[in-house]
Amino acid sequence: MSHILILGGDGYLGWPTAMYFSDRGYEVTVVDNYFRRNACVELDVGMLYPVTSLIERAKTWHELTGKEIKVVIGDLTEPEVMRSFFDGRIQYSWAVDGNFSGIPETVFHYAEQPSAPYSLINYKYANITITNNLLVTNNLMFAVRDFSRDTHIIKLGTMGEYGTPKIDIEEGWIDIEHKGKKDRFLFPRQAGSIYHTTKVMDTDLLWFGVRMWDLRVTDLMQGPVYGIETEDGGQRADDGGRRTERSESRHLRTIFNYDEIFGTIVNRFVAQAVVEYPLTVYGKGGQTRGYLNINDTLQCVHMAEQKPAANGELRVFNQIMETFSVNELAEMTHRVGRKLGYDVQIEHIENPRKEAEEHYYNPTYQGLIELGVKPHYLTDDVLAGMFRLVEQYRDNIRKDVIFRGVKW
Amino acid sequence: MSHILILGGDGYLGWPTAMYFSDRGYEVTVVDNYFRRNACVELDVGMLYPVTSLIERAKTWHELTGKEIKVVIGDLTEPEVMRSFFDGRIQYSWAVDGNFSGIPETVFHYAEQPSAPYSLINYKYANITITNNLLVTNNLMFAVRDFSRDTHIIKLGTMGEYGTPKIDIEEGWIDIEHKGKKDRFLFPRQAGSIYHTTKVMDTDLLWFGVRMWDLRVTDLMQGPVYGIETEDGGQRADDGGRRTERSESRHLRTIFNYDEIFGTIVNRFVAQAVVEYPLTVYGKGGQTRGYLNINDTLQCVHMAEQKPAANGELRVFNQIMETFSVNELAEMTHRVGRKLGYDVQIEHIENPRKEAEEHYYNPTYQGLIELGVKPHYLTDDVLAGMFRLVEQYRDNIRKDVIFRGVKW
Repeated sequence: MSHILILGGDGYLGWPTAMYFSDRGYEVTVVDNYFRRNACVELDVGMLYPVTSLIERAKTWHELTGKEIKVVIGDLTEPEVMRSFFDGRIQYSWAVDGNFSGIPETVFHYAEQPSAPYSLINYKYANITITNNLLVTNNLMFAVRDFSRDTHIIKLGTMGEYGTPKIDIEEGWIDIEHKGKKDRFLFPRQAGSIYHTTKVMDTDLLWFGVRMWDLRVTDLMQGPVYGIETEDGGQRADDGGRRTERSESRHLRTIFNYDEIFGTIVNRFVAQAVVEYPLTVYGKGGQTRGYLNINDTLQCVHMAEQKPAANGELRVFNQIMETFSVNELAEMTHRVGRKLGYDVQIEHIENPRKEAEEHYYNPTYQGLIELGVKPHYLTDDVLAGMFRLVEQYRDNIRKDVIFRGVKW
Repeated sequence: MSHILILGGDGYLGWPTAMYFSDRGYEVTVVDNYFRRNACVELDVGMLYPVTSLIERAKTWHELTGKEIKVVIGDLTEPEVMRSFFDGRIQYSWAVDGNFSGIPETVFHYAEQPSAPYSLINYKYANITITNNLLVTNNLMFAVRDFSRDTHIIKLGTMGEYGTPKIDIEEGWIDIEHKGKKDRFLFPRQAGSIYHTTKVMDTDLLWFGVRMWDLRVTDLMQGPVYGIETEDGGQRADDGGRRTERSESRHLRTIFNYDEIFGTIVNRFVAQAVVEYPLTVYGKGGQTRGYLNINDTLQCVHMAEQKPAANGELRVFNQIMETFSVNELAEMTHRVGRKLGYDVQIEHIENPRKEAEEHYYNPTYQGLIELGVKPHYLTDDVLAGMFRLVEQYRDNIRKDVIFRGVKW
């Protein structure tokens, strides 16, 4: 049975990834230090619904499915915590079988501070973002180097690493001809936040490890993800099935933020529409990015795991399924919300960020499709489904915490 | 009177920079946490001669010249220490006049862990290198953003950021034409150590700050520096002058390491030759890099200070004066050492690093010359002068600490 380790297993993507692979017969270990939850409390960020602890969710999963997801609550910036997953000194915080699962064949690295505004609240949050993200990555790289060079590292990058260049964005690499000579390089990256810059740095670290020690790394340059329901978790709660399972498995839903700091744009727009808080478009709204459904994130990491990078390869995929401008997302949310009876307004506010509000944007994103991913697209129906789920929790949405006014 | 702040003022380049500018009438503040000295003790790294404390050297400088170099012993990874130089809450560890000097017009950022082998001793030293170098840079960037956006940041990068690409190395920037469209980017960088990778990251951080907040940054991509004597410090000790001044100013010499971890190659080769320890060439010895005399470092930072970057500009110079392969440096040291009567041997040892031992290398380095720097070149006479100085301390050189065997 293949063994996977998920760093950041309590997060928006980490927990669904754990269920997805557990459901498919993998031996799964998750680790998290509750960074995101603690930050949500500290910053008074609202959640759409309460999320039970990682251990409680693993127990619920075990009760419902008979499958085990081993849990460690620990801080991966501590190198000894990271190394314990490779040298067997790990102590599980919860497990059915407390014996060491063995060295993971694949590590999914989600254990990062994932918010651009968080990283720019002030210098302290910038420092936290830098140390957290780089130390976790570096500890992972050295643990794999020291104990298991065949372990495949699948890390999340972000399309934000590329910024908005005036040339077409390739999948990670570019051939440059200069003064009659040629070489191949990582595609130029210049990010728009401290958070995004740490992702550039992560890549540089791992690219060093790949060149020096023949590590195997897949870097998934992901766009903003939207959605709540995944086939293994949340969806089980709503698509019929036995009543007992439904009420239990509601506790398996992943964390959902709807604020400016931790809420991704589509999720946030739906929540804003449901409480009739105007959709806040920054400046002209021509900012264009690539997006994907949370179910496609799961497909992508699965395909990357199934067909791993070779030793000495840093393989890069642009993990998006389609592109939208902020205006297009606002208009779609407006249209679907109106149909559902909500008085949705769109408000252009002064851009709190320094970014191009109209720009060229032409990224390539064929690699994951070629690996076998079948895209879900953001249609009116999909958006309506999100509305129906979010409106169940309408009373939980606090309008006062949606816009935070972090400027840079 | 222009006020400059030197981060890392106790180091090989920091202290000579302090004397250089103090001598020219600048108000100078230096800060250091003795990271390098402490590391030398921890790792049992030898110094060619004892170096008195930063405070003692500042006092000696004051006695000899009547000029004041204000000293702070403090850790710049602590943001409040960095910010105290800008908000006036600074407490000097030593000063003639303890009043706040005011916000610096120019900051020289040398406060980094500067050794590639140190960064790769093991994962702990890698983490120390990452956190030290990035937090100091980030704290500096935010302090300048928050208190003084016109302060010019002059930071040391390294030619090692570029690695050894198969295309010509430009000064920091490259125009890329791709699929019929054009844009300008930072020159591709892929470094050969964790240390060098942190310098890539430094640049990415400051490039973010330049784009977001119109900061003024000069990035000096320096090659390995050689030499001891500077016009203001060490040289005063040897070029005639009053006897009293000579014996006093010997205490102004900068730190000189001759080992594999902190000793730069030319300095180390001279020390090895003087004790007749074979010159250790890694592998084939075709590794080619750019080099410069310590006096040229001082000229370069002075020119960069005199003609600062504009707001919103990240200005990059390749700070080297000539290129040599390791074989060429070994042969030169061999030739000069033999002439001086030393039985110098050259030994090719198995390369402890993963690097190209024969490669294309064609960097541009005209920018600083155009600013007015007059290069010193590494001639047999210059090398012989280094031999004469190093041989005064021959008995201090410990052969057992020269080669450390750090592998990657």
